[in-house]
Amino acid sequence: MTDAIRRESDTMGTVEVPADRYWGAQTQRSIGNFPIGVDRFRWGRPMIRALGILKRAAAEANADLGELPADIADLIVKAADEVIAGRLDGEFPLVVFQTGSGTQSNMNANEVISNRAIEIAGGTRGAKSPVHPNDHVNRGQSSNDTFPTAMHIAVVEEIAGRLLPSVGRLRDTLADKAAAYGGIVKTGRTHLQDATPVTLGQEIGAWVAQLDFGLGAVRASVPGLCDLAIGGTAVGTGLNAHPEFGDRAAARIAALTGHPFRSADDKFFALSAHDALVQASAALRTLAGGLMKMANDVRWLASGPRCGIGEIRIPENEPGSSIMPGKVNPTQCEALTMVCVQVFGNDAAVAFAGSQGNFQLNVFKPVMVHNVLESIALLSDACLAFKAHCACGIEPDIAKIEANLGRNLMLVTALNRHIGYDKAAKIAKEAQARGLTLKEAALGSGFVSEADYDRFVVPLDMTHPS
Amino acid sequence: MTDAIRRESDTMGTVEVPADRYWGAQTQRSIGNFPIGVDRFRWGRPMIRALGILKRAAAEANADLGELPADIADLIVKAADEVIAGRLDGEFPLVVFQTGSGTQSNMNANEVISNRAIEIAGGTRGAKSPVHPNDHVNRGQSSNDTFPTAMHIAVVEEIAGRLLPSVGRLRDTLADKAAAYGGIVKTGRTHLQDATPVTLGQEIGAWVAQLDFGLGAVRASVPGLCDLAIGGTAVGTGLNAHPEFGDRAAARIAALTGHPFRSADDKFFALSAHDALVQASAALRTLAGGLMKMANDVRWLASGPRCGIGEIRIPENEPGSSIMPGKVNPTQCEALTMVCVQVFGNDAAVAFAGSQGNFQLNVFKPVMVHNVLESIALLSDACLAFKAHCACGIEPDIAKIEANLGRNLMLVTALNRHIGYDKAAKIAKEAQARGLTLKEAALGSGFVSEADYDRFVVPLDMTHPS
Amino acid sequence: MTDAIRRESDTMGTVEVPADRYWGAQTQRSIGNFPIGVDRFRWGRPMIRALGILKRAAAEANADLGELPADIADLIVKAADEVIAGRLDGEFPLVVFQTGSGTQSNMNANEVISNRAIEIAGGTRGAKSPVHPNDHVNRGQSSNDTFPTAMHIAVVEEIAGRLLPSVGRLRDTLADKAAAYGGIVKTGRTHLQDATPVTLGQEIGAWVAQLDFGLGAVRASVPGLCDLAIGGTAVGTGLNAHPEFGDRAAARIAALTGHPFRSADDKFFALSAHDALVQASAALRTLAGGLMKMANDVRWLASGPRCGIGEIRIPENEPGSSIMPGKVNPTQCEALTMVCVQVFGNDAAVAFAGSQGNFQLNVFKPVMVHNVLESIALLSDACLAFKAHCACGIEPDIAKIEANLGRNLMLVTALNRHIGYDKAAKIAKEAQARGLTLKEAALGSGFVSEADYDRFVVPLDMTHPS
Amino acid sequence: MTDAIRRESDTMGTVEVPADRYWGAQTQRSIGNFPIGVDRFRWGRPMIRALGILKRAAAEANADLGELPADIADLIVKAADEVIAGRLDGEFPLVVFQTGSGTQSNMNANEVISNRAIEIAGGTRGAKSPVHPNDHVNRGQSSNDTFPTAMHIAVVEEIAGRLLPSVGRLRDTLADKAAAYGGIVKTGRTHLQDATPVTLGQEIGAWVAQLDFGLGAVRASVPGLCDLAIGGTAVGTGLNAHPEFGDRAAARIAALTGHPFRSADDKFFALSAHDALVQASAALRTLAGGLMKMANDVRWLASGPRCGIGEIRIPENEPGSSIMPGKVNPTQCEALTMVCVQVFGNDAAVAFAGSQGNFQLNVFKPVMVHNVLESIALLSDACLAFKAHCACGIEPDIAKIEANLGRNLMLVTALNRHIGYDKAAKIAKEAQARGLTLKEAALGSGFVSEADYDRFVVPLDMTHPS
Repeated sequence: MTDAIRRESDTMGTVEVPADRYWGAQTQRSIGNFPIGVDRFRWGRPMIRALGILKRAAAEANADLGELPADIADLIVKAADEVIAGRLDGEFPLVVFQTGSGTQSNMNANEVISNRAIEIAGGTRGAKSPVHPNDHVNRGQSSNDTFPTAMHIAVVEEIAGRLLPSVGRLRDTLADKAAAYGGIVKTGRTHLQDATPVTLGQEIGAWVAQLDFGLGAVRASVPGLCDLAIGGTAVGTGLNAHPEFGDRAAARIAALTGHPFRSADDKFFALSAHDALVQASAALRTLAGGLMKMANDVRWLASGPRCGIGEIRIPENEPGSSIMPGKVNPTQCEALTMVCVQVFGNDAAVAFAGSQGNFQLNVFKPVMVHNVLESIALLSDACLAFKAHCACGIEPDIAKIEANLGRNLMLVTALNRHIGYDKAAKIAKEAQARGLTLKEAALGSGFVSEADYDRFVVPLDMTHPS
Repeated sequence: MTDAIRRESDTMGTVEVPADRYWGAQTQRSIGNFPIGVDRFRWGRPMIRALGILKRAAAEANADLGELPADIADLIVKAADEVIAGRLDGEFPLVVFQTGSGTQSNMNANEVISNRAIEIAGGTRGAKSPVHPNDHVNRGQSSNDTFPTAMHIAVVEEIAGRLLPSVGRLRDTLADKAAAYGGIVKTGRTHLQDATPVTLGQEIGAWVAQLDFGLGAVRASVPGLCDLAIGGTAVGTGLNAHPEFGDRAAARIAALTGHPFRSADDKFFALSAHDALVQASAALRTLAGGLMKMANDVRWLASGPRCGIGEIRIPENEPGSSIMPGKVNPTQCEALTMVCVQVFGNDAAVAFAGSQGNFQLNVFKPVMVHNVLESIALLSDACLAFKAHCACGIEPDIAKIEANLGRNLMLVTALNRHIGYDKAAKIAKEAQARGLTLKEAALGSGFVSEADYDRFVVPLDMTHPS
Repeated sequence: MTDAIRRESDTMGTVEVPADRYWGAQTQRSIGNFPIGVDRFRWGRPMIRALGILKRAAAEANADLGELPADIADLIVKAADEVIAGRLDGEFPLVVFQTGSGTQSNMNANEVISNRAIEIAGGTRGAKSPVHPNDHVNRGQSSNDTFPTAMHIAVVEEIAGRLLPSVGRLRDTLADKAAAYGGIVKTGRTHLQDATPVTLGQEIGAWVAQLDFGLGAVRASVPGLCDLAIGGTAVGTGLNAHPEFGDRAAARIAALTGHPFRSADDKFFALSAHDALVQASAALRTLAGGLMKMANDVRWLASGPRCGIGEIRIPENEPGSSIMPGKVNPTQCEALTMVCVQVFGNDAAVAFAGSQGNFQLNVFKPVMVHNVLESIALLSDACLAFKAHCACGIEPDIAKIEANLGRNLMLVTALNRHIGYDKAAKIAKEAQARGLTLKEAALGSGFVSEADYDRFVVPLDMTHPS
Repeated sequence: MTDAIRRESDTMGTVEVPADRYWGAQTQRSIGNFPIGVDRFRWGRPMIRALGILKRAAAEANADLGELPADIADLIVKAADEVIAGRLDGEFPLVVFQTGSGTQSNMNANEVISNRAIEIAGGTRGAKSPVHPNDHVNRGQSSNDTFPTAMHIAVVEEIAGRLLPSVGRLRDTLADKAAAYGGIVKTGRTHLQDATPVTLGQEIGAWVAQLDFGLGAVRASVPGLCDLAIGGTAVGTGLNAHPEFGDRAAARIAALTGHPFRSADDKFFALSAHDALVQASAALRTLAGGLMKMANDVRWLASGPRCGIGEIRIPENEPGSSIMPGKVNPTQCEALTMVCVQVFGNDAAVAFAGSQGNFQLNVFKPVMVHNVLESIALLSDACLAFKAHCACGIEPDIAKIEANLGRNLMLVTALNRHIGYDKAAKIAKEAQARGLTLKEAALGSGFVSEADYDRFVVPLDMTHPS
């Protein structure tokens, strides 16, 4: 950035803007007025791209409807395409904590696209001609309908393009493990106490089922997100937009993204509440809850190496301790569960914000979409890392599994039907009191022969109905 | 309750139980061990009824499968029917904060049904014959699968039988109001600032659309709740249950309730996580967020009577102040929004609890279902009260609406296309600076004639695309 | 309750009230208008008692200031004493979800005390003479200052009289255990992985330190709660109250309760925000977080009996399973941790509600105090139960502790200073790879003699700096 | 960064590191293993600086105790000073979502300081001599005690150096406004309804009192944060640290920062729980709740300009709408309240994480400190922006205030003592029913003369006790 400046104007007057920037007066004012979290809360790719898609779609819809000359629309499309492609990300300096309708980020997009279009047309930045930020780029739009439209585009694209594949890969890895270890019988645990056997495949399969449920919940939140506010303009009535603008723009957005976006039935609701985002956030929380349970199971099953459960081994990715070989800290579990609690916190912010609308507008839009996008990004990243650096390397410690299963007194249940509950209980009590294996106690009791014991007490048979 | 006692036994020994009670040893132990919140946290109708339905369905399924003699099953059905009908509610003294699998409440049901069945058969309470609480009433079951099954039954019944109708009645009342007031044009508000007009029907219609979204979210949570854990027994393997027991019992539950309950595909997931409840809780939170926005709008629109917005009137149900006539406190809004924050809190508890499972069991079952049921009950009650004592009586204050609209400078927008933005802005600025009405300023400006002004500035036209 | 009725009046007209009830018109209206959660959300002892204390103190202050005749004040004191003592609890039928200022509960107290005072004076209920509910009982007061005053009285009394003693008893029991087991050396665990040794006393002592921190946080919230709104009347200005009324009433409340209550410096803040309650709720959440960690440690340490950690034993209070001796489910841990998640949820509701005040009033008062009182009650009950039925019976399983410690490879750390890191690491690696004890591997390595090993590797020495 | 690499080693082997970086093998591994949120979740200044302070203090303490040669310590101090000063921030590439003990960030500090110290000594990066990252920089330390120590240093410095001054400046601005507007009498509002008068000074003063309460809560959280884990090493026993190390290092940290840091009494608690952070987070939430209430009041009081309350004016910082002069959107209120909901969300994450410790370690350390630091930064930034761009410019709209007050029927209260309640009520009812001013109705009633009315009804007198 050089020290050269140019003067840009808006309805409040003129503002000095760095000469080499595409943004204009309103963006520059926002930089000055909202120096809040500037190192961490600038909009990232998803929202910038979504604004580009929206502005391109709007220009195309307006051109179709005769609301914009074809050449102007074409210039907007060219500039918007650069925004979409990420070539102008540096021109979006604004942060989440601004006007609650996202007005300045909408204007940021208008200003950047206008100036870039002017430049493409051979004009001078700041001239507002031939492409005006308001009259052309923002034509038939208001921040109140464009920003929530961009929110939905960004979230749907991130869910479909990032979250579902990333979490899906972890899910598939676990499903492979479940299949691979379907024959390994081990101690089940309820209340943290030894229980009747399960297979390792069943145990891991429950994680897969839970991830499937969470992924299903996220997927189920998408249709609501496909309803777009565009066309509602300032209060939902569509004032200043062509009556067909909302439908046409939404159709273009659908075409550009490949997702079934449509114009929302009730634009007043679409501006004043963002319950589709609240539902999406909640689904992410459900998914996070499932990941937390899975990651906790993994670290407990891998606990030890000697004084814990130790039934699985996980990859050693970094030194756990400078002295202790075999001390494999479950660091991927730790990173993932930290992500999960962050997602819980983000969701609390989203739901709170979602409840605070008034009349025709909810002015917590930026903080809502920020948290949803952050949850998506973190869950995606963490699941990929967990998959690559932990899940792929989960292996059973057969010796430990067998040792644990061998001393699990709950196997006595298998004797009930043969020698009756009372005698079985007597055997188990004796084993526990005297520190015997179940078999030792059983044979010692005289209630069962070794041959019968070996025939009756078959843990694998206890893992499936027969 | 008399002072007479009888001795009941379980695997730990004998316990003294009040002679006139149907419960047995395990229930009695739980009374002693968990004196936590006893005045407020005993299970209510929905869970008791659900346990009755479950136990009846289990007996019928076991009888079908030859696992229980028909006469025993018949006795269980008779006793369970009394539980279902609510005739034995006083026999369920246990509280939410007990064993995290709900074991004691499952045993409470077993004991009560067993003893009542024995009594019906002419036997003696506590005899465990001819109907044994474990061997017969709990046959093929474990607390770990029965309690979550009862949780789902209770929540589905409460959603379908109580929440949807109650909230639906409020929704319909608001929809009627929206239709009735579709022709009343009023000031729109964004950022709490005067904006272009909307109709009162559009404003109220947005609440209806938001309630519809919330109700849709709740409905969408039901299919997950229709998956039942029954058949999984202690760890999900179905050990000790007939292989067909889960499907048969679920089918009976579906028949008894009229809801499409089915046996869950993955019983390990069904015992170790309750994400369907987490999703239901989240949907209730979304609904609560929508109700909060609506109730806030109502109280702000009714604010005044003189120094607020005052565009609607709401019923005066109780003295607001001992001196001030016309001071109608929006008490129903206050009760409803308090319910909404409670639902948010309940949901936080549910989601936290849902993340804390380990291995084959989540031991936060009771607190999860308690909070979901409480949220359902509170939302249902509050919506009915709000409907009856507030929504039904919402009426526009036409004079205030017209006065506000008349001085709303945003109407100037309608002049833009006729005299251009610059002149329109000049008029609006002058009106604001000198305290004039828009019309006064417009006519004073000389830019527009009175006839044209009256033709151009028609608020109703601004409320819909043309 | 008989069917007889009497007519009571308020500023809106007359209402039929059951003849045998002390409450009047406004209470009766509230019963009709707020049928929300009536089975679970009626006010309990703490708030009823606090209202009684407040009304007595107000009468005494007014009498001192010449604002009430002595005989009238005396009648109010007599009736209020009955409220304080709990003899009229049945006369408080209202629920949490009512007017957000608690108006109807304030009027409930006024009506009950008035009618009981009239009765004491030999008059007729409903006569409003010689003791008028508004002019006398509510003299110099408004719901807006009385209800938050009662909230603070109730919470301070419950913290001091119930929470601190109950949690303190658990804390003392654990402190005793820490002292008793100070000499038992065991495996430490970080990242759920075996680590260098600690004593069981140190491990339990950390729980004690954490409870002390949580209790300290709760205690630190009390001074803020001792600031009372009384004297602010309707908006904080004290209109209609004697200028000294607030101070005098607060002094009387302090005398009646033994807690250092005082009149708040800023009454406008005292009515419009309840941040002292928010802070108290947060402190309860901190305490709950500590209890959760402790209870989780307990159940993990007691996990097994064979396939878990199993280093402590906890009491067996009820049958864990019908077949498995020694399967002691950690049911008290489960109940306590469920209480903890409830407290987290309650706190979320409190903080949300606390943020929603407007201008001179926060109208979420009832839901805020309800949740704080519920958290106090649940934590108190659960800690007492946990203490009696779990903590008191915690015992080390010396054999398991020693076995675990014996195979804990982290003991190798003690060799570092004698044979150097490289050789020590080699020993540990060998032990892990070949499944040897550390001692076996050490002796096998030839790096250290048995005598030296036994001298160097002394776990107890590793538990304290030397 | 060039493409040149060097080989760094740790206990797991060698790793390629960019040649121009100071970090070493463990940092490099972490970059590879935790690609989670890398664009937003790298540690910022506060934590890097805190790690520098800690490492310097540790070196000095070790030198004092003879555990480190003076020259080595001196080199560490020099390198640490560069970390403290921010000259090496680019050398800290790791993110929040890593090992839950912050191990890699501790090692990052060790590696960078070691290599920079080596360089200062004229050596070669990666040589581990003369300054070894573990043996020297990390001497007597473990990640388990250093990271939480750095957490506390960072949070205390940020609270004292950033939050308290920033929020304090807003508080002081508001206090100035309260003083300036102490004589402006206006309508009070309870339940959003017109109530008896207050002064604008009293209204703003309540915000000041609430901020003071919140700031007091934050300050009260500092002593707990001044207890440092340092000296506890891996599990709390202080193994491998000199017995006086903790006290000496804490004293040096206190000297370096000017804050009363001390060595925690119970190191086991200091490693396994972070309740001091939970309490600090809760205090930030309380502060945020107060800011939310204030910001909501500001935007409602400024609502309009014509159809809202409109009793104050706030600065117009950016175009609110392209057409509407006087439409001043309360954008600073919107940014601030969005920050507040973010703080609520962050706090939920912190408290959840705080409850999830096990045994001797809580492995949610990074996510806890991250959220607390983010809340501090956002609140600080937002309060400064709000102060500069909103609070400073708050001005009463005297005409609107007087107009509202003039028609506020609650002024009738002032007549009660002169003409009695019944007549006063009659006047107010008449005014409301016929749309009269109170004075018109009063004079029309014949109950009071104009002279008396003007003498009796003096709103200013109603704003303070007399």
